[in-house]
Amino acid sequence: MTRLYNDPVNFVDEATEGFVAAHAQRVCQVPGGVIRSTRSEPGTVAVVIGGGSGHYPAFAGLVGQGLAHGAVMGNLFASPSAQQVYNVCKAANNGAGVLLSFGNYAGDVLHFGQARERLIREGIPCEIVAVIDDVSSAGREELHKRRGIAGDLTVFKIAAAAAEAGYSLEEVVRVSRAANLRTRSMGVAFDGCTLPGSKDALFHVPAGKMAVGLGIHGEPGISEQDVPSADDLAELLVSHLMEEIPDGIGSVKGAKASVLLNGLGSIKYEELFVVYRRVNQLLTEAGLEIVEPEVGELVTSLDMAGASLTLFWLDEELERLWKAPADAPAYRKGSLEAAPPIDASALDIPDVDAIPPASEASIAAARCLYQALSATRRIIDQKVEELGRLDAIAGDGDHGIGMQRGVVAAELAAEDAVSRSAGAGTLLRMAAEAWSDRAGGTSGAIWGVMLNALSVTLGDDDDPTPADYAEGIAKAKNDVMAFGKAKLGDKTLVDALAPFSEILEQAVAAGDDLATAWRKAAEACEAAATATCELRPKMGRARPLAEKSLGTPDPGAVSLSLIVAAIQPVIDR
Amino acid sequence: MTRLYNDPVNFVDEATEGFVAAHAQRVCQVPGGVIRSTRSEPGTVAVVIGGGSGHYPAFAGLVGQGLAHGAVMGNLFASPSAQQVYNVCKAANNGAGVLLSFGNYAGDVLHFGQARERLIREGIPCEIVAVIDDVSSAGREELHKRRGIAGDLTVFKIAAAAAEAGYSLEEVVRVSRAANLRTRSMGVAFDGCTLPGSKDALFHVPAGKMAVGLGIHGEPGISEQDVPSADDLAELLVSHLMEEIPDGIGSVKGAKASVLLNGLGSIKYEELFVVYRRVNQLLTEAGLEIVEPEVGELVTSLDMAGASLTLFWLDEELERLWKAPADAPAYRKGSLEAAPPIDASALDIPDVDAIPPASEASIAAARCLYQALSATRRIIDQKVEELGRLDAIAGDGDHGIGMQRGVVAAELAAEDAVSRSAGAGTLLRMAAEAWSDRAGGTSGAIWGVMLNALSVTLGDDDDPTPADYAEGIAKAKNDVMAFGKAKLGDKTLVDALAPFSEILEQAVAAGDDLATAWRKAAEACEAAATATCELRPKMGRARPLAEKSLGTPDPGAVSLSLIVAAIQPVIDR
Repeated sequence: MTRLYNDPVNFVDEATEGFVAAHAQRVCQVPGGVIRSTRSEPGTVAVVIGGGSGHYPAFAGLVGQGLAHGAVMGNLFASPSAQQVYNVCKAANNGAGVLLSFGNYAGDVLHFGQARERLIREGIPCEIVAVIDDVSSAGREELHKRRGIAGDLTVFKIAAAAAEAGYSLEEVVRVSRAANLRTRSMGVAFDGCTLPGSKDALFHVPAGKMAVGLGIHGEPGISEQDVPSADDLAELLVSHLMEEIPDGIGSVKGAKASVLLNGLGSIKYEELFVVYRRVNQLLTEAGLEIVEPEVGELVTSLDMAGASLTLFWLDEELERLWKAPADAPAYRKGSLEAAPPIDASALDIPDVDAIPPASEASIAAARCLYQALSATRRIIDQKVEELGRLDAIAGDGDHGIGMQRGVVAAELAAEDAVSRSAGAGTLLRMAAEAWSDRAGGTSGAIWGVMLNALSVTLGDDDDPTPADYAEGIAKAKNDVMAFGKAKLGDKTLVDALAPFSEILEQAVAAGDDLATAWRKAAEACEAAATATCELRPKMGRARPLAEKSLGTPDPGAVSLSLIVAAIQPVIDR
Repeated sequence: MTRLYNDPVNFVDEATEGFVAAHAQRVCQVPGGVIRSTRSEPGTVAVVIGGGSGHYPAFAGLVGQGLAHGAVMGNLFASPSAQQVYNVCKAANNGAGVLLSFGNYAGDVLHFGQARERLIREGIPCEIVAVIDDVSSAGREELHKRRGIAGDLTVFKIAAAAAEAGYSLEEVVRVSRAANLRTRSMGVAFDGCTLPGSKDALFHVPAGKMAVGLGIHGEPGISEQDVPSADDLAELLVSHLMEEIPDGIGSVKGAKASVLLNGLGSIKYEELFVVYRRVNQLLTEAGLEIVEPEVGELVTSLDMAGASLTLFWLDEELERLWKAPADAPAYRKGSLEAAPPIDASALDIPDVDAIPPASEASIAAARCLYQALSATRRIIDQKVEELGRLDAIAGDGDHGIGMQRGVVAAELAAEDAVSRSAGAGTLLRMAAEAWSDRAGGTSGAIWGVMLNALSVTLGDDDDPTPADYAEGIAKAKNDVMAFGKAKLGDKTLVDALAPFSEILEQAVAAGDDLATAWRKAAEACEAAATATCELRPKMGRARPLAEKSLGTPDPGAVSLSLIVAAIQPVIDR
């Protein structure tokens, strides 16, 4: 369990402060994460990595000469916001574009993706490689659905060594994707970790059992068995990974690979070495040449009891890049001449607190949006328990509380925005970040996506017209469907959002004023939300629970219809 | 808990094999431990470190260029044998002598000390620096009684950097002692670790509590309190360490120190960084300049939950040596040109199994000694439960079992020695190693010391006379008293051994044959063992239990008197 903290709310901030104090020779803090404190060659690609905190040395411990240029640090096991990613990229950029790399999790994909769009809009080339090494997380015909675990390191290292060698962004992307497709990992877990201040672990594995393929945040695995001997575990992991030899490897005999045996927190070094002994025997017997293996803690989950094995199949170029020197707080290899320190005062660090200038009309619209958020907060306050009960039927019952945490934060952010004369776009962006940061979970991410879509559409310059609102909500619907990969009929918020958006667009196009159009759309939304009673959920982890939710409406759809109705009086004014 | 192992008996051997496979570029295995696999400068001092296993990266992870030349690896939490130390030193020696360094624990002091004597006898200069950084383990007027914990690293690093810089052995000793006297640590524990195959932890701390100063093997601490906040823990550790500023530091303001914040296994990086944040603030506020701190896992105890803070107060020379580059599996610093690999076939690795030539008379004496050991084994087999019950009154009840494990191993070793025509000295040395290796605990170490003393006195060349036996037993008594720091009247084995030795010497000097002299001495021994009923133990950890043992004899003294009597028929023949 996690024992040492002050106020759990400040855990990540305080850990970051301590980390930077201990490693000032290599890293310095910027809003959203850390970057190298040493000078990088101008005109080289910057490699920015990141994800939730709690996985040290991932991600901040992997920043330094020869490794990443910056790391974006979200809250514990939570994706950083798009703003954080953007900030770190701006500070790390060396003038030749940015490669973003991170484990393939929905929240990270969303937020790094949003930041990428913004950087490109601002003229900074940016590409993404989401790491997909975990063979247990999806079949080999669905590589894009796989999660990233300890194989993060191989992709980061290759990308960074290529950047250091002066590769163009296109070339860095090429070798990073090659590394990604040649990296396979498999993990096991014996028990979960406990977040600071929590009474119980994030998840448990029954005593004496081992969960095969269980994710590092408790995502479902593929099977459970008795804890095996060290040798049997080695054989299990090696045999699974040898079933998936990547394309381009002719024969195992004579092939080269690096091997990572990773401890997740409380499986310790001596145990890992006992397992590695057998891994080394098996791979060597198979004719594989092992190149510069790593046995230790590379990607952890606080003190989770678990381990993973990674095979990284090399070609000549990847071997050269893998062996290149690096000097990060938690990963050092070879011999590097120390680069001089950067001039921190010259960094291009965006002023996160700055409010961009806005038109009078947009500032006025922002005041209305603040009132709409207040109305949203009031209805959620009122319905929080009802939403929780609805969610408890087939979920974990936290929908009401999550919505409440999100909307309270969003209202506060909007109040701040109004007091500082922000335009509509900026107010919505601030509210979106606050909501997704504080709410956590899928509903937090979805509300962040929707408010962001509206923010981008409305901007800070124009007086928003009814058509602008309708367009923003249509974009929100499209973005949510793209993000959540939900289709109509999957029993999600989309089932209420789609008719709402459609009717709103139609009514506005037909010449209705916003209040009238909204009323018609709200009625359709409420009817659709109620009708989700008859649907059966099609996606996500909750599949085995689908039966339980038959005959009840989807809580996300209900929330949306309640909010839409609650906003009506604000629009009527 | 420790989950991944095969047969627990092979845990350390298998972990070592895996460790060497993973780090072949830096280390190679020799009987007893590991040495650098890279070439060291001829004519430089070799720094050999070591101790029990289970503390990775201590000790094997700290072998490599700029750090130790070799590490001796005992069993889990058990001192390596003198033979192991000797082997590693012979293999690591670069022709300019050896510095031995390790944490100050009785078993290590004994065995490294014995190896040192042997090396010196063979013409290899050798010195010892036992690390004494743990302020909780004894008062500051008894520095020599303090244990070594995470401060091991500072002493090892300074010694090794000095050796690398070409210092003479005398000079390496000088700076290592200076580092030792300027290093202070303090640790806390939240829970113990579980040995592979054990059902329960080595020790426990009550849930929600923190044991202040508890040793890394469960040695008693100084107090227990509720688990504090991270900031309060930082303040506790810093305030204790600031009470003990070493001699030679004029003022804290402007002084320089390195700081190590060490996790013992399952207190993880993020937690350590949160604590370090406050440590850094407090020390900086006090005016201290922090030089190249380390926050991470430096000396662990498997997955023990605990942490320690070390302050290493620098002067100009120590700062230079601390900052010098190093490249070990688990500790890398600065930039080093990789040294070429060694030629492993040219290593001076002693043949552990070789039996030195011996005189016919000594070989005949060895056969008698084997019979004496068989008689010893039989009496212990017979009395094992009685000895256990005696020990259970004031101890942990394992005296009988420990004696049995030891003597069974010693008899087997002696049988092997006889079958290969070993002399008396070699047979006793082999029996001593087997006994202390297998018995564990204090009684194992004491019987190792006694048999070793006899081994050195008898040698392999001469036909042992009654005077030689009497002299060997007198040496055994002196060595045991020096090792255990026990005096007459402390209710230990010494209370029976001293009169036995005295009467034996007197009778032999007066012209008695060995059988007669032994009978007289054995009577005195038995009387003295019985008389320990009236004594009260004065030393060791068991002090609070002293009252309980009133009126019962000391089990160690009883064992000795039983054994002495059981040997009589062998001598009579």
